[in-house]
Parts: sequence; structure tokens; C-alpha cells
Amino acid sequence: MLKPLGDRVVIETQNEEEKTVGGIVLANNAKEKPQTGKVLAVGDGRVLENGKTLSPSVNIGDKVLFDKYAGTSVDYDGKSYLILHDKDIVAVIE
Amino acid sequence: MLKPLGDRVVIETQNEEEKTVGGIVLANNAKEKPQTGKVLAVGDGRVLENGKTLSPSVNIGDKVLFDKYAGTSVDYDGKSYLILHDKDIVAVIE
Amino acid sequence: MLKPLGDRVVIETQNEEEKTVGGIVLANNAKEKPQTGKVLAVGDGRVLENGKTLSPSVNIGDKVLFDKYAGTSVDYDGKSYLILHDKDIVAVIE
Amino acid sequence: MLKPLGDRVVIETQNEEEKTVGGIVLANNAKEKPQTGKVLAVGDGRVLENGKTLSPSVNIGDKVLFDKYAGTSVDYDGKSYLILHDKDIVAVIE
Amino acid sequence: MLKPLGDRVVIETQNEEEKTVGGIVLANNAKEKPQTGKVLAVGDGRVLENGKTLSPSVNIGDKVLFDKYAGTSVDYDGKSYLILHDKDIVAVIE
Amino acid sequence: MLKPLGDRVVIETQNEEEKTVGGIVLANNAKEKPQTGKVLAVGDGRVLENGKTLSPSVNIGDKVLFDKYAGTSVDYDGKSYLILHDKDIVAVIE
Amino acid sequence: MLKPLGDRVVIETQNEEEKTVGGIVLANNAKEKPQTGKVLAVGDGRVLENGKTLSPSVNIGDKVLFDKYAGTSVDYDGKSYLILHDKDIVAVIE
Repeated sequence: MLKPLGDRVVIETQNEEEKTVGGIVLANNAKEKPQTGKVLAVGDGRVLENGKTLSPSVNIGDKVLFDKYAGTSVDYDGKSYLILHDKDIVAVIE
Repeated sequence: MLKPLGDRVVIETQNEEEKTVGGIVLANNAKEKPQTGKVLAVGDGRVLENGKTLSPSVNIGDKVLFDKYAGTSVDYDGKSYLILHDKDIVAVIE
Repeated sequence: MLKPLGDRVVIETQNEEEKTVGGIVLANNAKEKPQTGKVLAVGDGRVLENGKTLSPSVNIGDKVLFDKYAGTSVDYDGKSYLILHDKDIVAVIE
Repeated sequence: MLKPLGDRVVIETQNEEEKTVGGIVLANNAKEKPQTGKVLAVGDGRVLENGKTLSPSVNIGDKVLFDKYAGTSVDYDGKSYLILHDKDIVAVIE
Repeated sequence: MLKPLGDRVVIETQNEEEKTVGGIVLANNAKEKPQTGKVLAVGDGRVLENGKTLSPSVNIGDKVLFDKYAGTSVDYDGKSYLILHDKDIVAVIE
Repeated sequence: MLKPLGDRVVIETQNEEEKTVGGIVLANNAKEKPQTGKVLAVGDGRVLENGKTLSPSVNIGDKVLFDKYAGTSVDYDGKSYLILHDKDIVAVIE
Repeated sequence: MLKPLGDRVVIETQNEEEKTVGGIVLANNAKEKPQTGKVLAVGDGRVLENGKTLSPSVNIGDKVLFDKYAGTSVDYDGKSYLILHDKDIVAVIE
């Protein structure tokens, strides 16, 4: 079990074969290449300069859209996970 | 349905054929190339260092002018959407 | 009608033929090339980290001096407008 | 005995032969190359701009995942240690 | 009349022939090339993040030493003016 | 006698011959090359944006580990000193 | 007379012939080349973001050690002065 630190989030990424999530086909522009996945774990959040902690804006189970080149990838029990910062998640797919 | 996070906004962009919105023809200078679109969804806003959340400055339905190279593009049900940060929206067309 | 967002300002720029405004001839150094224009619309202002909004320092109708390469240019009903940030306005010509 | 300063943490790194920790095989993307280790000592934490000290988010004994290129390596009594900043620790392996 | 905005200051620069002001001969090092002039107008000052305005540190009439490459030059009624930021003024010559 | 300013610290560095301090052999990675020494003098500390002064985290007499390329070296009475910032000290050797 | 602004300090630098001040011979590393001088004038100090002014950490008459490439040099009545920021002064020589 991976417990992400700070504003990090553990994502179960989609396979290459499934390029659509919830019917969404992704078109990338030159700057950002989005990818989709499911949130498996969230950290406690980012600490602001006034000492308060800001909770991540996603919850476990959310389907999310994020920048494909963001984060650190980890393989565990044959599955591929991604650990990325909350700010790199672009949108939740509802 | 895409729910943008933070200060992000989902925009329905204009087709290449329609280069004018509300009669405005866009002339780009070397630095920024503006484009127009309609706001479909807005995030909760940016969190300031004092912990308060600053609501985005546009509302659903607004016609907006933004930097063409800003944001992440997504195709959904044959339409083209753009997810960009509130600060990349230059003006509202009234 | 263009409503600029944040600390942005809509400027009606001068024609190339009119290189002087109020008798001022502009000499550019290597770093900044100033240009003159009239303020047509102002945004609500920049939001400070304490949550307060700082009003732009110019008013509608002001003749202003700004950096020629700043901002986004827009053509509307045959006129040329410029949308730039309040901080890029160098001086008001009184 | 090494006492790390500020938000630094002393890590006992894994040998090259043990590429898995807790069954996790690490796959690196182009940006970050994670590595695992055990926390031996933690500093007092980072001082925020309001003067408060923010304790590190890991404890002595934690198995952690961190960026392989982060930190300063030190050899002591034939073992290899790494001193890195708390923010470079990606996740705790539970 | 030019009214500088924010922490800007309008300077009446010295002619090339007058390389000394108050008996000071300027020697430039590789990093900064100072020049002298007289303050003609000052802005209201810089707005701090707490919303307070910080008045410029020079007054109208001050002889000042500044970085030659700083600011925006403007010609008006045959005279050469320079508009620069308060922080680019190195010293007052008394 | 050298009195370091701000968050600076004066260090008496080790000779090249003594590559170990307290039995520690230093192995450098590509990013940081640590070195050891003894603290001779400490400044008053760094001033935070709220006006409070943050005392340095080391004391006179501490054996410390620091980045070899940090700071300014000074020779005095045949000895070699290094003046570096408190943040460049990685750990205290106890 | 030069009155430095903000956190600036006017320094009377040493001649090339006098390479030692108070018996200190300076050895430069690759990053910073220190030089010595005497403080002739100090500014009012740096203004913090909370509006308070932080006095410079040196006084008139102090012998100081600073980075040789910092600041702006000025010749006045045949003497060489240097105007530099308080933060570029490394230590006071007592």
C-alpha cells in the first residue's frame, strides 16, 4: 500500500488500448498531453505559509484527467500506478 | 461531464470557420494569439496563501477571449473543449 | 463591448501616422518601446494574497503611455484595441 | 551519528540487488526516477514565513519512496546513507 | 505633463557632454552602468501584498544616480526624459 | 575576527588529508559534493518577512557536513575558513 | 555626498596594492570573489512585505568583506566607491 505525501495523489492509469474514458477522446495540443485514470489514494494536502493544510481537491474513486508527463510511475503487483501532485490534475470526469 | 479543478475553466471553442465572435476580428501580435469561446464549466477557484478561495472571474455562458496556446484541449462527443486557467482569460465579450 | 478581466485594461491605440500624443515624441531604448493610447475599459483589478482587490491605477478616458510589445491586440468594427495589464502602463499623459 | 538540519531526512538506501521493497517494482518515467529506503533520522522541520516550524511528514523507521537523484549521499561504517529534503519523499510504503 | 504610475519616477537625464554631476565621475563595472539625472515627478508608490502603498524613496528635485540601461526614455518639447522604477535608483547625490 | 552577517556561518574546513570526520567517508553524487568542518562563528540569523529573526540552526563548535561548492573561502593566519549560508549546512555530526 | 537608497551601502574600497585588511589574505573559490572595504554610508534599509523597514546590518566605519562583482562602482574626488546591497556583504572584520 502506497501512502502519498503532501499534495500527492496515487492514480491507477488506463491501459494504452483504452484511449477513451467515459466516452472522451483526448486530443493533445503542443503544450500538455492529458491522460485519464482513477484515484486510489490521496495525501493529507499542501501546507500553506500560514500553517494550515489545504486538502487535495480529488477523492478516492474519482476518474481524473491529468498531464501525461506529470508525476512518478510505479509498478506494483503487475499494475501501473502514477503518483502526481494535486495541481497536475486538470479535471474530474463525472 | 468535465468538472475543472481549482481556477480552471472548460471552454467550448469556436470552429476555424467562425473567426469572429460578436463581430470581433482577432489580430494577433507576436506575443499572444487570442481566440474566443463559451464557458461551459468553472472550477471552485484558486486558493490564496491565507486559505481563502478566490472564485473564477467568469460565469457559465460567458463569451470569452483567451490566449490560443493556453490550456489543454479535449474532444468529447464530437465537440472540441479547452480546459484553461482563469488567469489566461483576457476579457469577456458582452 | 469588451470587459477586461483582473488588472487588464482595454486601450484604443493611436494610428501609425500620429506618432505624438500631447506633443510627446517617443524615443525607445533597447529595452522598452513605449506607445500611447486612450483607456476605454478597466477590469476590477488584481487580487492580493490577503484577498483584497487592488483597483487599476488608470481610469476610462486617460491618455496613457505603455510598452508597445505588451498585451493582446484585437480588431473590432474597424478599430484597433489593445488589452494589457495595468502594470504595463508606464505613465498617464496629463 | 548524523543529525539532519531543517526539513532534511537521513535515509538508509536499498542495495542495487534489492530492486523491490514490499513487492514494489519501480518503473521510471523520463522525469523522475524513484528509489526506496528506510528513514533513520529526521530534522526539526521547515520554518514557515510566519515563524512556525512544520514537522517533516515521515517518521524514523518509515519505508519511503523518493527521487533517486535527490539529496546528498554519505558513506558511514560501510553503509550508504542519503540526506534529502522532506519534499523529495514521494510516498510512504505501508 | 507625465504622471508616472506605481513606483515609477520621471527623470530629466543629463546631456552626454556633462558626464559629471556634483563632481562625480562615473566608472562602470561589468554589471551596472550608472547615470545621473534630476527627479521631475514621482508615482504614488508600490502596493505591498498587505494592501498598503509604499511611497517612492526620492522626491521631486533630487539629483539621483541610476542604472543607465533601466527604464523607458521619452522625448518631450526637445528634452529627454526617462521613466524608471524607484528600485533602479541607486543613490541620491546631496 | 570575522563576524558573519545574516544567516551566514564561519567554518574551519578540514585539510585534504583528513577526508573523514568522526569516521565518516564522504561519497558525492552528481548533484552535491559534501565536505566537513567546524563552526567558528554564526550570524544573527535570517530575517523572516514578518520581521522576526530566525536563529541559525548550528552552534559554535558543531562539526557539520556541507556542500563543498557553497560559500566564500577566506585565508587568515595560515588557516582556511569558509563563510556559508545556514541553509547550505546539510547535517550536524554528533 | 552619496546617500544610498533602500538596503544599499556605500563602500570605500581598498587599493589593488593592499590585498589584506586586518591581516586577512583572500582566497577566492569559483563562485564568489570577496573583497574588503570600509562602510561610508548606509541606506534606510529594506522594506518588508508587512511594511516594516529592516535596518542594514552594518554601520558607518565597519570594515567589511563583500563579493567583488557585486554593486555599482563610482569615482568621486579621485577615490573609488562602491554601492552595493546589504545582502552582498558577507562579514564584518573585527
